[in-house]
This record gives sequence, structure tokens and C-alpha cells, in this order.
Amino acid sequence: MTSKKLVNSVEGCADDALAGLVACNPNLQLLQGHRVALRSDLDSLKGRVALLSGGGSGHEPAHAGFIGKGMLTGVIAGAVFTSPAVGSILAAIRAVAQAGTAGTLLIVKNYTGDRLNFGLAREQASAEGIPVEMVVIGDDSAFAVLKKAGRRGLCGTVLIHKIAGALAEAGVGLQEITERVSVIAKAMGTLGVSLSSCSVPGSRPTFELAADEVELGLGIHGEAGVRRIKMATADEIVTLMLDHMTHSSNVSHVSVQAGSSVVLMVNNLGGLSFLELGIIAGAAVRALEGRGVKVARALVGTFMSALEMPGLSLTLLLVDEPLLKLIDAETTASAWPNVPRVSVTGRTRTRAAPTEPPEAPDSAAAEGFALKRTVLVLEQVCRTLLGLEGHLNALDRAAGDGDCGTTHSRAARAIQGWLKEGPPPASPAQLLSKLSLLLLEKMGGSSGALYGLFLTAAAQPLKVKTDLPAWSAAMDAGLEAMQKYGKAAPGDRTMLDSLWAAGQELQAWKSPGADLFQILTKAVKSAEAAAQATKNMVAGAGRASYISSAQLDQPDPGAVAAAAILRTVLEVLQSQGV
Amino acid sequence: MTSKKLVNSVEGCADDALAGLVACNPNLQLLQGHRVALRSDLDSLKGRVALLSGGGSGHEPAHAGFIGKGMLTGVIAGAVFTSPAVGSILAAIRAVAQAGTAGTLLIVKNYTGDRLNFGLAREQASAEGIPVEMVVIGDDSAFAVLKKAGRRGLCGTVLIHKIAGALAEAGVGLQEITERVSVIAKAMGTLGVSLSSCSVPGSRPTFELAADEVELGLGIHGEAGVRRIKMATADEIVTLMLDHMTHSSNVSHVSVQAGSSVVLMVNNLGGLSFLELGIIAGAAVRALEGRGVKVARALVGTFMSALEMPGLSLTLLLVDEPLLKLIDAETTASAWPNVPRVSVTGRTRTRAAPTEPPEAPDSAAAEGFALKRTVLVLEQVCRTLLGLEGHLNALDRAAGDGDCGTTHSRAARAIQGWLKEGPPPASPAQLLSKLSLLLLEKMGGSSGALYGLFLTAAAQPLKVKTDLPAWSAAMDAGLEAMQKYGKAAPGDRTMLDSLWAAGQELQAWKSPGADLFQILTKAVKSAEAAAQATKNMVAGAGRASYISSAQLDQPDPGAVAAAAILRTVLEVLQSQGV
Repeated sequence: MTSKKLVNSVEGCADDALAGLVACNPNLQLLQGHRVALRSDLDSLKGRVALLSGGGSGHEPAHAGFIGKGMLTGVIAGAVFTSPAVGSILAAIRAVAQAGTAGTLLIVKNYTGDRLNFGLAREQASAEGIPVEMVVIGDDSAFAVLKKAGRRGLCGTVLIHKIAGALAEAGVGLQEITERVSVIAKAMGTLGVSLSSCSVPGSRPTFELAADEVELGLGIHGEAGVRRIKMATADEIVTLMLDHMTHSSNVSHVSVQAGSSVVLMVNNLGGLSFLELGIIAGAAVRALEGRGVKVARALVGTFMSALEMPGLSLTLLLVDEPLLKLIDAETTASAWPNVPRVSVTGRTRTRAAPTEPPEAPDSAAAEGFALKRTVLVLEQVCRTLLGLEGHLNALDRAAGDGDCGTTHSRAARAIQGWLKEGPPPASPAQLLSKLSLLLLEKMGGSSGALYGLFLTAAAQPLKVKTDLPAWSAAMDAGLEAMQKYGKAAPGDRTMLDSLWAAGQELQAWKSPGADLFQILTKAVKSAEAAAQATKNMVAGAGRASYISSAQLDQPDPGAVAAAAILRTVLEVLQSQGV
Repeated sequence: MTSKKLVNSVEGCADDALAGLVACNPNLQLLQGHRVALRSDLDSLKGRVALLSGGGSGHEPAHAGFIGKGMLTGVIAGAVFTSPAVGSILAAIRAVAQAGTAGTLLIVKNYTGDRLNFGLAREQASAEGIPVEMVVIGDDSAFAVLKKAGRRGLCGTVLIHKIAGALAEAGVGLQEITERVSVIAKAMGTLGVSLSSCSVPGSRPTFELAADEVELGLGIHGEAGVRRIKMATADEIVTLMLDHMTHSSNVSHVSVQAGSSVVLMVNNLGGLSFLELGIIAGAAVRALEGRGVKVARALVGTFMSALEMPGLSLTLLLVDEPLLKLIDAETTASAWPNVPRVSVTGRTRTRAAPTEPPEAPDSAAAEGFALKRTVLVLEQVCRTLLGLEGHLNALDRAAGDGDCGTTHSRAARAIQGWLKEGPPPASPAQLLSKLSLLLLEKMGGSSGALYGLFLTAAAQPLKVKTDLPAWSAAMDAGLEAMQKYGKAAPGDRTMLDSLWAAGQELQAWKSPGADLFQILTKAVKSAEAAAQATKNMVAGAGRASYISSAQLDQPDPGAVAAAAILRTVLEVLQSQGV
């Protein structure tokens, strides 16, 4: 089974990908007849050093994403995981030379094919009289013993693009850039880890891993790494990686120790989630700082991928202040991230939580509202809801997940517990606000959030007055908030149907001399009728909206509960003879 | 089987990922006690509008990657794919208010939980007297028929972060920002496609796809899409997506048509290779331009992911010049890419290939060098190599992949064919240069590149003179280039061993009055001895370096071939009695 890929053709992959990148980036142009991308403002580079890099495709955004002012002048791309053609490398060198640049530096990842092909193009260009230098980057820290082929070129190459780019932009000459980056490139190490392999378009994955294994020390061509380790936590894996890549017994280590200052790169090899990448990045900063290493800059993102490999690499570059200035220099390269020009280590990473506002002075405290009666109403509402638990769950089973009664009982028990802690607030506004927070926290689900919204909004008009018009306004405010954020309207077969019907009747409280009980009684009856009417409604919101209306022949349990709460309020108030 | 993830704990995922991002970005701070990240320069924002966004984790870099000057003031993150806590949203609102900002705009993706929780926090903050507005972004173009819940909030939300951020940075007031982005958000559409699902840490993948299927119109929480389609080419899939998202019969379409100007976002949903993303991006630009749509800006990258989902989304935003200015405005947000402030459509995407340099004037043409003799030497070398094919392959089978003879025969036949086309160049320098290009193109593999390198470098000293010292210098230059780029040294069991041994003897040509044949004869014998001596060498480079030396008891075929070439040259020259 070959891999599933979003491509036009296996053969056209590399061409299409480079052309796509150029199409989206007006700062780039393709060189006719070659798989080469160049800065479109090439002619503005007269007298400056040109920087060319490249290699096989499949490592995007490397290298074409790093073309721009302050980074690369151009790149030459090969087929997927294959070195570019000598003829194309030579064409790129000629093109930048003919634009008037003062010589070219080839930045090449250390792989045999790349070394030979770039080397050959360099020799040919030199023979034509074009000044061309070449640096071969080997930043791999995987191999503990010396390999004749040297360290492989990995993600650290992108840092060299940045450093050389800043030097070239500053007008430094070819020889000096070559010498400086050659030295800098030696103070760098990269190590990769992956959860699985990747697959070249048209091919199968290049290695297999068990479900509890990760691959350590891999390259960027889907090849297996130096070691297979058991799955561990992010912290453990980062510790293992840093140990391996900095230990002096490893010939390819980078000499990072307490007191060192480093640039850290956390590079997505392609298919790792950015959630995991962030976790690893945090673990790396913590581990380095724990070793007394100063993290001067931390770059997190996809810089040099291995197709869709679900892994990452860590790169450490030893830096001093002059080198940091080059890392910080401006660039227009599309894939270079916005990196704050501030040290990561030493910054305060936490801000104190905001102060809670003082309880608003309650101008309408307890006026005409007896604390005892409030407690009686709440206690009876809780008993009602607990009594309805089985019935509500049964109604809900027909249309939802059967937990409506359970949710309301949870709310009831939360209120009962809260009442045991002490008397509720005396003012209606504070009472509703506290109930809102309580339901939000303890009732849970959408019902909790919706009742929370209703009560928070309803509390506002009651801050000023608590007469009947204010209570009607509170109902209006609650209904409005519920509709606004919950996106349900009357008729959608939700708890809103009962509450809205009641709210319509309670408008009458706004008239002078309105009668509390007469109107409330009408409101409760209207709410009950609305709850029953939900039987015939098509669910327009909430979980029941996913069920065909033909299957719904019972009333909505949320609407039934809301009506029952209103009836309980009415009955307790009547029994108390307000 | 739950998914394999690089995490510390399933419960700690969201906290660790946000903390990691903050650790790496000194422009950010965490709000103590909450899963909230805020700009660390909050106190510089006095009098400006604060912008808060957020939602479930798992969509990184959204939203915390978009915090910065010119974009968001802060974000509130929930657990993976879960709405953030109301208390944390409220804490963020209070924190920015206490820093002296002039009100807050909440930018919320349209999902029930986010709407309710942000809405509730907003109501509570409003009740505390903090000016808070809220825009709910629904840019999903998947649903062809109206859904009560409205269009889902997807990647287009990031464009709203950018636009609102530019307005806030410019000092625009809360009401005006709210109104403007509400209008802009309606002129936007997003559609996703994926090759497979993703899995929440600790859980299994959320849906399954056959090997020849792709999922169209999915959200960002691993939920299935609106349609499952057969795998097709990148061009076909992009066409299908654009048709779906712009067709007027789709109630959620975006009205993009001929003459429209758009910002295009090509968003990696997490696990797609950037190679494929580039291919799709190119296809999208091509398809839009083919419809007469002007692509004003194209953003390609990971903006809003669904963990490691191997898919992408396309977003189209209708724009005019004033809106483009806001998209182009500066930002320090780490995940916002460098976007050239130039229209994508209308730029020249190709640069003419460079001119080939004229053939270098050949000051040493044919002096003391007979064309006929050259042809005889080359013909006989070809016959020698063809005769050795079986022997070289047999030697190679013991140590490599058994094709050394085949490779050299391919070279021989290429030279034979070339000689039939016409006489070779008369000057030695041009002869070696042409042979270099021929072998590079036709011989293939590392041998082709190495002989190409050798010949290109060897040609240089022969441009000036063609006396015996010049030929010795040519040998030196060839050997140096071969070692430099091929990374093999004498003693590494490669073709270099024979050539290097010969080169040592040929130093004697540099002495005045040196004898051509006497020294060349010594050189050939030395080369043959060196080739035989490779029997006892440990392979240090090339493919044979992967084989244990104990298994190698035959000479290296490359070294044998090189010695045979040298002997042939000697014998032909002697037979011609130079």
C-alpha cells in the first residue's frame, strides 16, 4: 500500500511544491527551465554576496521558505529526498552572478549527493571565473562514534542561512562570510526523535515502530535513527535528547554546559501536533535552564521537515552577543518566525492574577424581600427537581443522552449544600449572581452555562430596584442573554420555550398596580402549556436537534424542568402569603 | 489502542503546551492560576482596546501564537477541544481592564460551548462595569443548508485577529472595531479536507477513512465532515473545494467570483506535509486566477490546526485596499508569517534562465596533442571498461550493490556514442570539461559525480599549458576536488586509492626533462598495486563502508577500474609512440 498524498503526480511533486510556494510569495521567482527559486529583487543585490542553498525536496519550508532579504538569495531543489541537478545549481550560480552579485556562497547540508553536486557546480562556476565558496553544514549530534561521512546536515542549517544572510545583507565579503559561518556551524548540534516514519510520495513508510517505541537520532529522509527507545514522557525524552547531544563522550556533541548561552530551535519534522511541539519546547527550556544554560532565543515551528514525519528535532547553537545580533537581524523570508529580541531565560513568565472587584454596593438590599422566604423557595425548588429526576431522564432518553434529570439533580444538590454553608445573600441581585456562579461550576454542561447566563443577566436590573417592573426586566434580560449566546429561539424545543412564555406574561408586572400572584399564576400556566407544546416542535438547537422530529413525541425535559421551577416559586410564595 | 503522543500527562497537555509557548516567547506571560496567556507589555496598552480570544487547546498555533503587538492582547485556552473556563475568561478580562485598557473585544469561534462561556464571562464583566463586546466568527462554508447553530468558527478567525489587532493598534474604539470586524467576518469562507483523522491525547482517532477516501468539510475537532469523496489529484480536490465554498446554492458560501479580490489562506490542519501544502497552495492560486479572481495575498502555513490531522483548509476573505492595509500592518505575533505587501496575482513568476558563458578561449589548443590519438585512447578505454563489466560487478557484489561494472559500462557506451557525433574538442582542457558533463549526465551515481568532479578540476591547469608539469598539476587538482567533495581519503578503499597512487608518481613530471613513458609506466604500476592493496583495507567511504571489513577480501572495483583506465591510456600512447 503506497501512501495517500495530496499531489497531482508523484513525478511532479517537487516541481509543483516549489511552484506553489513561488506562486504564493511575490518576492520569489522560478528560474526558467530549472527547479530553482530566486529572490525577485535579484537586481538590487549588485555588489553583495549571494547565498544559495538547497537539496532534496520534502523538507519544506526548507529551503525556499528562507529566501528573502536577510536570508537566502535562492535555492535549488531536487526531487523528493534527492540531490538537485548540477546543471540547475550551476544555472542558479550563473543567474545571481549575472545579476551583478559579488560572488556566491553555497550552503550545503552534509550528504554525499549534495556535497558532490554542489561541489561540481562550484568547480564549473569557478572555471567560468565566478567566485564561489561552499560551506558544508554537519550539525547532527546523533552519532556517538566518528563516521567517515561526517555529521549529517539537519535543521541547524537554517540558522546558518540566517547568520550568513545577515552578514551578506550587511555587505560583508565572501571570504569573511565563509570563514565566519564555518566556525559558527561547528558550535551547533541537532538531534531528532519521532513517533513514526514518513513516506515518500508513491512509496510505503520507510520504517516501522511499535506502539510503545520512539526512534531517536534520525535524519530527515525517513531513515531509521541510531536508537529505538521505549515511549516515555515529554520531559524524559527531552532529558535523554539533551544528554545525548551534549555529552562529551559523544564525538558529535555540542559543548553546551552550565553558563553556556544558546539559541534553541524546536523543529517539527512535519506531522507532530503543535500541541506536542509546545509541550516539548517547554520541557526543553526547563531542562536547559535546570542545567544552568541560558536560553537566549527559542524558535518553535516547522523549519526543516521530513515530509509528514510525526517527530521533532532540537537544535542548540552556542551564541554570544554579536552572533545574537545576526540571529535578530531583520529578514523578509516567509518561514522565519517573529522572534522577540529578548532573552528567554530571565524573563518573568507569570503575571499576578487580577484583583477581584469588591462586591458592588447593593442599593436594593433585602427591601421587601425576606431572607427566610428565599431559603424556603430555594429548598422547595431543589426538592421539586430531585423529585423529577427519573421523569426528566426518561424524557431525555427519547431525544438526548438521558441525563437531563441527573443534571438538574446535581444543581439541586449543589444549592442544598450551599444553603447549608450559611444564609444566602439578602439582595436579589447578589442572590442571582451567586446562584449563577454556583450552577456554572456545579451543574455543568450547556444547561449550567445557560442558567448561569440567565441568572447573571437577570441580576443586573435588580441591582437598582426590586419592584415588580424590575423583576419583569430581570426576566427579559435573562431571556435575551440566553437567546443571544445560546442561539436558541422560542419554538426550538428547549428550556427557553417555558421561560419565554412566562416572560411574555410577566410583561404585565410593568403596568402600575399590577398584581403579583394573578400575573405569576398566568405566567406559570403559560410556561407549563409551552413545555407541553414542545411535544410537537422540531428541535432547532441543543442535542435533540440531531434527532429526526418524527421520533420526538414527548415534551422537552429542559422546558418541563423550567416550568416546574416556576410553579414551585409560585406555590411557595403563595403559601407564605406575600 | 490510544494514540502515541509526546506529552507529560493527558490531563496536563493544555497547561504544558501553553506554558511551553510562553516559556519560548518572552513577549508573553501566563496569568497566575489560569490557563491564560497575555502580552507581557500589557501596561503599555493604556487607553487602547484589548483583544481576547481563545477556545479549546489542540488548535496551536491558534490562538496564543497570535498574541502580540498588532494582533491579540491575550488568549484563554481550554482543555483539548474543550471550551475554556468562564472564571479564566473573566480573569483575563479583568487583567486587561486593570492594566488600563479601554474595553475588551472577545473574538470567539462559533461553537456552543465557546459562545456560552465567553458570553457568560462577558455578562459578568459588564456587570462589573467593564466595557466588553463580543464577535462570534462563523466562517465555515461546509454546510450547504442552514444549520440553526450557524457556521462554525474556523481558520478565518485568525484573519479577524489580524484585522482587529491592526485597528486596535491604530487606536480605533471598541464599538467601531466590533462593528467593522462583524461586517468583515461575513465576507469570508473556509473549507477543510483531510486524508485521515486526528486523536485527542489519551483517545483513539475520531473517525476512520478508507485508503482511497478523503473527508471534505470537516471542522477542527476531529469530527467527520459533510462528505466523503474519492481520492483525487490536488488540482481536482482544490477545484471541488472552491466550487463548494463559492457556489451560490450553498447558504454558507463566500461570494467570490470573477473580479473579486481575495486573501487566500492555505492552512495545514496539523499533520499534512508542507510539500503537499505547497502543491495545494499552487493549485489554489491557479484555480482562483483561472476564475478571474485576484489573489491579493496568499498565506501558507499552520495557523489553526486540529492536532495532527493530515489535512488542510482553504480560507477566502473578500478584500479591498483599506482591508489589505490592515492585513499588511505590522505585528510581533510569533505565528503570523512574513507576508509580502504585494499582490500575488499579476507578478511575474519566472525569470529567464541565465545566458551560458561563451566557450573560454583556449590558449593551449591541440599543441602537442593529436586529435586522432585522443580518439584512439578514448575508444580503447571504452573497450577496456566494457570488457571488465562482469568482473567489476562480481567484485562489487561482495561489498556493494553489484553494479560497479554496469555503471562503468554505461559511461563507456556514453563516450562511444559521443565520439560518433563528431570529433572531440582538440584542446585537453575542453576535452576533460566535455567528458565531465557527459559522465555526470550519463554515468550516474556517485561514480559519475566523482569522475565529473575529477575531470572538471583537472581541466583547469590545462587551460594555460599542456606540458607534462601541467598534466601533473591536472592530476593534483582532480584528486584534490575528489577528496574535498567526496570525503574519501587514500586508504578508504575507493577509486581514489589507485588515482592517488598514480598522482604521487606523476609528481616527477614536474621536474625538468622528465620522461613521459618512464614515469607514466611507474604511475600505472603504482595504481595497480594500490588497487590490489584495497583488498586489505577497511572501507571508509562509499557504500562498502557499511560492510564489516572481515567480509571484504577482494579489491575495490572502483580502484580496479581506475587502474585499468590508466593502463589503457599508457598502452595506447606507447603503441602510438608519442
